[in-house]
Amino acid sequence: MARWRSDTRERLQAAALHLYLSRGYDETTAADIAEAAEVTERTFFRHFADKREVLFDGREFLTTAFVDRVASAPSDAEPLAIIASALDGAAAFFAPERREWSRSRQRIIDANPALQERELLKLAGLAVEIAEALRTRGVEEPAATLSAQSCLTVFGVAFAAWVADGETRPFGDIARATLHELTRVTAGPDAR
Amino acid sequence: MARWRSDTRERLQAAALHLYLSRGYDETTAADIAEAAEVTERTFFRHFADKREVLFDGREFLTTAFVDRVASAPSDAEPLAIIASALDGAAAFFAPERREWSRSRQRIIDANPALQERELLKLAGLAVEIAEALRTRGVEEPAATLSAQSCLTVFGVAFAAWVADGETRPFGDIARATLHELTRVTAGPDAR
Repeated sequence: MARWRSDTRERLQAAALHLYLSRGYDETTAADIAEAAEVTERTFFRHFADKREVLFDGREFLTTAFVDRVASAPSDAEPLAIIASALDGAAAFFAPERREWSRSRQRIIDANPALQERELLKLAGLAVEIAEALRTRGVEEPAATLSAQSCLTVFGVAFAAWVADGETRPFGDIARATLHELTRVTAGPDAR
Repeated sequence: MARWRSDTRERLQAAALHLYLSRGYDETTAADIAEAAEVTERTFFRHFADKREVLFDGREFLTTAFVDRVASAPSDAEPLAIIASALDGAAAFFAPERREWSRSRQRIIDANPALQERELLKLAGLAVEIAEALRTRGVEEPAATLSAQSCLTVFGVAFAAWVADGETRPFGDIARATLHELTRVTAGPDAR
């Protein structure tokens, strides 16, 4: 993709976020976003299927970040090590310069139940893709689904902490601490 | 609730399941269900908000089953023991005589993406309620959310196995084996 297209895309995303926060998601149209980004509505729709997808198109890159790390983990890695590797992939995606965008995006989603549902469904789809990548590596069921779901559990908790007001630790540090806490919680003395 | 009402409700549920399987979910109306159950449409709507809720109203009882066991676990129980207790609550709910109903229901849901989304969202809500019940017991974050999500992870995997063709083990046995497998997966040597 040529650089100018990427610029346009980022301008559209920035304009959308600004309008969703200042005017409200429901009150903003694709035409409003295009106008604020100084492009035509047709250009908006070349980049995004609709105004909702401005908030969710990054999920494809995130899925790739997760799944690539699952695929490239050492061949003898245990599921937990593969999960840790996948979370490192997410950490590369959620770089420090993305935190403000993610925070703003989360504020918009938290204010809109329909967007929350969309987010949940996207994350459920992500878990399915990670489980598939684990099975491709030879991880059997139910370990593959349990690992993939646990990866998403850690991701969800870590992400919420990462975008919380005042949090300054990098995503990778939070994710590792959360994975460690999951190990602690699920390895209690009462395991049956 | 008087016995006759419960009978009507069960008749409506049985008629709905039969129609959803034989004719298709989208092709069945609340009026069709009422007619098959030999009651008026108004009676249908006294029991269910719409035709979709015939498939989902049990979720409230399931939530209660989970949350009650979380609340009533011994006061010194570790999160994992509380999860095991909650899964026992689910096992009481998914008694052997419910398996055929659950199998049929699952077949209908698997054939309909909108129902799958509804199911995912209901389960996400269940995780939120379990986390809340854990916090009420004094379990701190992020352990409460990690435990609740892990509980739902185990539940989802165990439930899918329980309704699989040919599976004969009781839900409780499958859930315990799955919880054990989760402990194994998340306690690998590569824990950081």
